[in-house]
Amino acid sequence: MLSELTIKEFLEKIASEFPAPGGGSVAALSAALAASLIEMVANLTIGKKGYDDEEDEIKTVAQDALRLRRDLIQSIDSDSNAYNDVMTAINLPGNSEAEKRHREDMIQSGLKQATLVPMAVAECAINVMELAGKTIAKGNKNAITDGAVGVMMAKTAVLSALYNVKINLSTIKDSAFIDRISKQVKDLEQNVLRREKELLSNIDL
Amino acid sequence: MLSELTIKEFLEKIASEFPAPGGGSVAALSAALAASLIEMVANLTIGKKGYDDEEDEIKTVAQDALRLRRDLIQSIDSDSNAYNDVMTAINLPGNSEAEKRHREDMIQSGLKQATLVPMAVAECAINVMELAGKTIAKGNKNAITDGAVGVMMAKTAVLSALYNVKINLSTIKDSAFIDRISKQVKDLEQNVLRREKELLSNIDL
Repeated sequence: MLSELTIKEFLEKIASEFPAPGGGSVAALSAALAASLIEMVANLTIGKKGYDDEEDEIKTVAQDALRLRRDLIQSIDSDSNAYNDVMTAINLPGNSEAEKRHREDMIQSGLKQATLVPMAVAECAINVMELAGKTIAKGNKNAITDGAVGVMMAKTAVLSALYNVKINLSTIKDSAFIDRISKQVKDLEQNVLRREKELLSNIDL
Repeated sequence: MLSELTIKEFLEKIASEFPAPGGGSVAALSAALAASLIEMVANLTIGKKGYDDEEDEIKTVAQDALRLRRDLIQSIDSDSNAYNDVMTAINLPGNSEAEKRHREDMIQSGLKQATLVPMAVAECAINVMELAGKTIAKGNKNAITDGAVGVMMAKTAVLSALYNVKINLSTIKDSAFIDRISKQVKDLEQNVLRREKELLSNIDL
């Protein structure tokens, strides 16, 4: 698993001449880092003087962030695997008509998978962003910039994942699939920019 | 060193109830991830058909990105260490007037260091962003979204580091230092948003 690599090794692996892991895995990691920052702010809030009224909500925030972090750690691999599956399909033999059809089917289903994985990352990441916003509003004020970094890392994860959705979408032939996903992309893109602005507006620095 | 931890361990360490490593180290890592993506796009461009004219420039981009990645890996630790040094200073004894003065001097110089480290990260990260922009303009078109993710991760690193600069600045007493750094922060903030827009405008997805 990529998450078992050291930071240094992971950076080296990204930098290599292989396309995967690439931007899609980085997007998932970015959201996982944001989730961890949320947990930290929650841990710096729970049991602290002056935050009694927020304690229950912040505990839920911490639990949700931990769950999302675990999913996102999986997605670091899923994104890379989905790309490699498309490459495997492209290298299938295409000598007979049957082989060509099989190869094309495998490529198309691989591309759909390589679209749905970053789509799921984007959806996780927007949830992470909302949780980061809660830590800004209700968490330990000494850690408010950690919440802000969480919002921005999650926002970047959403937009990065959506770039990967869009580039894969451009090679898919199923127009119903394209229409459905394109609409989701558009909604998420608009939503994430508006929400980032709102959530960061609570910080006065 | 934090970069010797596995991704999973690093995420766990961020999430813990200790304020460091926190948003400042995440900012440095975010820029290091962007640098790695640049190196990947460069590696997918060098020696590839159709990119002969760009080869020399892209080789320089790759070298610069590697150098910045190494600096940023160090900064993951530097940011955390600078925070811990401030905490150590705060815990110094303050029984006599001399001890109080020494303690206050150590806190103030620690806070300046904790401001200058993210400032340096922000400056590295804006250089990373420009390199990512070059990979979008001149690198392998198949990896264009990796360059885009690089631009956004670097932008987020700049803004995240600057949040850390600003929160530390608010506790520093040297007004000449505050004025000088505040001006740099303002310039960087304006510059980074404008440049991100320009660099991403070359992508049509």
